[in-house]
Amino acid sequence: MILQYDGTRYNGWQRQRATDNTIQGKLEMILTKMAGQPVEIHGAGRTDAGVHAKGQVANFSLDTDRTPEEILHYINDYLPDDIGILYLSVVPPRFHSRLNATGKIYQYRIGKNRAQNVFDRKYMYIHPAPLDMAAMKAASQYLLGKHDFKAFCGNARMKKSTVRTIYSIEFEESESEIRITYYGNGFLQYMIRILTGTLLEVGEGKRSPESIQELFDNLDRSLAGATAPACGLTLLEVKYD
Amino acid sequence: MILQYDGTRYNGWQRQRATDNTIQGKLEMILTKMAGQPVEIHGAGRTDAGVHAKGQVANFSLDTDRTPEEILHYINDYLPDDIGILYLSVVPPRFHSRLNATGKIYQYRIGKNRAQNVFDRKYMYIHPAPLDMAAMKAASQYLLGKHDFKAFCGNARMKKSTVRTIYSIEFEESESEIRITYYGNGFLQYMIRILTGTLLEVGEGKRSPESIQELFDNLDRSLAGATAPACGLTLLEVKYD
Repeated sequence: MILQYDGTRYNGWQRQRATDNTIQGKLEMILTKMAGQPVEIHGAGRTDAGVHAKGQVANFSLDTDRTPEEILHYINDYLPDDIGILYLSVVPPRFHSRLNATGKIYQYRIGKNRAQNVFDRKYMYIHPAPLDMAAMKAASQYLLGKHDFKAFCGNARMKKSTVRTIYSIEFEESESEIRITYYGNGFLQYMIRILTGTLLEVGEGKRSPESIQELFDNLDRSLAGATAPACGLTLLEVKYD
Repeated sequence: MILQYDGTRYNGWQRQRATDNTIQGKLEMILTKMAGQPVEIHGAGRTDAGVHAKGQVANFSLDTDRTPEEILHYINDYLPDDIGILYLSVVPPRFHSRLNATGKIYQYRIGKNRAQNVFDRKYMYIHPAPLDMAAMKAASQYLLGKHDFKAFCGNARMKKSTVRTIYSIEFEESESEIRITYYGNGFLQYMIRILTGTLLEVGEGKRSPESIQELFDNLDRSLAGATAPACGLTLLEVKYD
C-alpha cells in the first residue's frame, strides 16, 4: 500500500508497545479486526514522531477473499482523517517495502515567517532569521555521494553501518518558504533533520560550507548541527527497481 | 491590512460580544493594547464561523508614531499561529475596506474523498459521491449576471436589497478535488455556501441545471439547496478600483 499521513499527533510510524499511538499500530489494529487474526505491517520508512508522509509504502501478508480495492476501502473507512491509503495492490510474496527499497525522497520545509504560512503551519519549521541560500547550497555539495554519516546519526548506539549515499539535495525557494528535497539510498535515524539543522547553521553564518567535510573526518555527532524539528519533514516517495 | 486566517476554531470575522472568539475581536484586542485606546477594525468580508481567508482586507484608524511596518510586526507577534497579517499600509482617511470594495473572490473546495486529502482536510468539504461536472457547469451559467439572490440568502429577515451581480464562476478539477471560484460584486450571508449546496444537488442529479431559473422567479430560500459546510469556503481576494 501507498499511504499518506499528517504525523502531528502520532508517535511516529513504528509500533513499540501495543498502546503506542503510531501509524503502524493504527493500521495493524484495523487489519487485525478485518482479518480476525493478527496482521503485521512492514513500513518502508520508520518516520519519527511528528514527521509526515505523502508516499509511505507498507506491506502485509493476509489470506483473504476480499479484493485489494475492498481492503483499501475497509481500511480507509476505519482510519481517522489524518491517515489515508492512496493505493493498495497484490505484490509478490517476497516483496518487503523496506528491504526492497532502492531510494527514498524526503522534503524539509522551512517557513520564512509565521504570518505567511497560516495554512501549512503544521507541515513546516518556522525559522524567521534570514538564510544565506548560496552558502547552504555550497554546503550541500559536500553531502552528496557515499559517506559515513555517523556524525548525522541520532542513534549513538547504532551498531550497523552508517554509510549511506545521497544522490541529490535540491533547494526551492518561494516568497514564504524554502524546501530542501533529499534523495538517497536510505537515511539513518534523525539523519535528514540533523542534515537540515547543519545546513541551517551554514545559512545563519554559524559554520562554513567547507566545515561539512570535517564531519566526515571526525564522525562526531556533537560537531554536527542541531536536530531540526520533526514537523518540517515529510517522506515524499519510496523508490523500487 | 491584508490578512489570512484558518477559520476552523473561530466564530467568524465579526465581533458581536466582547467575549466572542472572532478574528475581528482578536485583532482589536491587540491593536487596543498597542494603542492604549479602543481601536475598531472594519473588515471587507464578514466571513462566517469556520470560513477561511487568504486575502481578507481590513482597515482601522489610529494616531500613532509607529510605522506601518512596526504595527504589522507588533500585531503578528501577538497573533496566534492561525492568523497572519500579510501587508499593512497607510490609506486615505475615507477608505473603508467593505464600502469601497468593488468585488470579492471566494473559493469553495470539495474533496472527492477523505484519504487523498489528509493535509488539506480542514479547508475543504469531503463529498465522496460522484458529481456530474457538466451539469454543474451548465447550472452555474444561470447564476451569472445581476439577479435577486433572495433564494440564496441565509438571513430570512434581510431588509436591504438582495440583488447582486456574479461576474464569473470557475471550476477546476483534479484527481482529488473540485474547486469552485466565485467572483461577484458582493455576496449575501451564506450565499456562496447555498450556491455551492445547490450546485452540488445538480451534480448529484437531484435537480436540473434549468431549475436554477425558478429560484430567481420564486425567490424562496426553501427551494434552493442546502448550505454547504463552512470549512470548504475561503475568501481569496477583495477587489478595489
